[in-house]
Amino acid sequence: MMKLDILTLFPEMFHGVFESSILKKAKDKGAFEYNLIDFRTYTTNKHNKVDDYPYGGGAGMVLTPQPIFDAVEDLQKQRESEPRVVLLCPQGEPYTQQKAEELAEEDHLIMICGHYEGYDERIRTELATDEISIGDYVLTGGELGAMVVTDSVIRLLPEVLGNEESAERDSFSTPWLEHPQYTRPQDFRGHQVPDVLLSGNHQKIDDWREYESMKRTYERRPDLIDESRLTEREKKLLNQIKIELGVERD
Amino acid sequence: MMKLDILTLFPEMFHGVFESSILKKAKDKGAFEYNLIDFRTYTTNKHNKVDDYPYGGGAGMVLTPQPIFDAVEDLQKQRESEPRVVLLCPQGEPYTQQKAEELAEEDHLIMICGHYEGYDERIRTELATDEISIGDYVLTGGELGAMVVTDSVIRLLPEVLGNEESAERDSFSTPWLEHPQYTRPQDFRGHQVPDVLLSGNHQKIDDWREYESMKRTYERRPDLIDESRLTEREKKLLNQIKIELGVERD
Repeated sequence: MMKLDILTLFPEMFHGVFESSILKKAKDKGAFEYNLIDFRTYTTNKHNKVDDYPYGGGAGMVLTPQPIFDAVEDLQKQRESEPRVVLLCPQGEPYTQQKAEELAEEDHLIMICGHYEGYDERIRTELATDEISIGDYVLTGGELGAMVVTDSVIRLLPEVLGNEESAERDSFSTPWLEHPQYTRPQDFRGHQVPDVLLSGNHQKIDDWREYESMKRTYERRPDLIDESRLTEREKKLLNQIKIELGVERD
Repeated sequence: MMKLDILTLFPEMFHGVFESSILKKAKDKGAFEYNLIDFRTYTTNKHNKVDDYPYGGGAGMVLTPQPIFDAVEDLQKQRESEPRVVLLCPQGEPYTQQKAEELAEEDHLIMICGHYEGYDERIRTELATDEISIGDYVLTGGELGAMVVTDSVIRLLPEVLGNEESAERDSFSTPWLEHPQYTRPQDFRGHQVPDVLLSGNHQKIDDWREYESMKRTYERRPDLIDESRLTEREKKLLNQIKIELGVERD
């Protein structure tokens, strides 16, 4: 069972996400257990302050190392483990599906969420094993990042998704974005399902999906395509797509 | 006041995040109001089914267009507005701070969260004005994406962050990652605050921070640096950094 400890000043933010849907099911199945720790309870100063002014001046406050170090060390001792200690922050490595797969192999994860403030640098250099950013946008705190990491990691645990196939076929498990999907009705306000999907010809359907999947990726996310790693078949299809889109001449 | 409508099958996931911290404050100040809509209530079929099998076969289910179209149209009518309709999905454009700034200018946003399933393509082509992905990792649904977009957008509203300066100085408002920050104590378990930050020399402190900020960006996120847009001063500093790191010879 994976053990997950989350250090946050806002534990109440997590309940809705952790007690619904797949995380609730995963917990009930015994795939993981979690613990929300308000690290303010570890402060040793009189006013339970977790932050202080930055040395050198400037706007904003900085989280002090003491309560966060003490909380992490206490959890290590309680769990008798050498956990990964993940700091959620805008300066972290961009989070990817590959990183989710790596974290899903761990027995014990500690995640640290700052809020408004920055972290004292010694938390980064002496305590964290990983710094993660979920994207290039500014959030109020690390809490949403910790929820994103939790959801993406927990759903990879073998006990969690009943249908292993569906985890594997998800976007980003292949280099291509998913092809368009259609369901009933066949005619929705005059917008039709493409004929090929109604043809019953599985080879044609697979070909159409592969082509549309590559085309969508080329149009929307060319950064995901590493042309040097394509198969001969993919190279040929990609060339056809470029011709269709008028990027290359026939 | 910004109006935010979120279509989801799991409205209970949002309470913890929307009723804490900055979003709660923003709501209490009247900066925005939100509405969580379970689009299952808009189904017209007997069993309140929101999804169906994909045409052409394959694993997984697909969200049908009817309840989502009806819900969006009902909200447009109620609000008498032409909202942006944002679909959270892995095939969307990668979310950025620039996009957050763009959405913060709107009066009315509708966000649509799928869960497990894909969307019928007609929802993308005929209803959504924007498709957004918060990152290249697989999540169980669009709910966490909608929370991320909400947090990043709402904190940009002029009424929300008291100190405008702190929103501007945040990471990703400049092209550089934030420099290291330190607070008390000066000596934490033998790890010292750098002397320069204790010097009281503001020019030196600013120079150190600029250099460290650029160095961190160069080491961790060279993809954020567009060398053609650097000032002469930045080019010189970057060169010094490359020499320090042994990438270029002195």
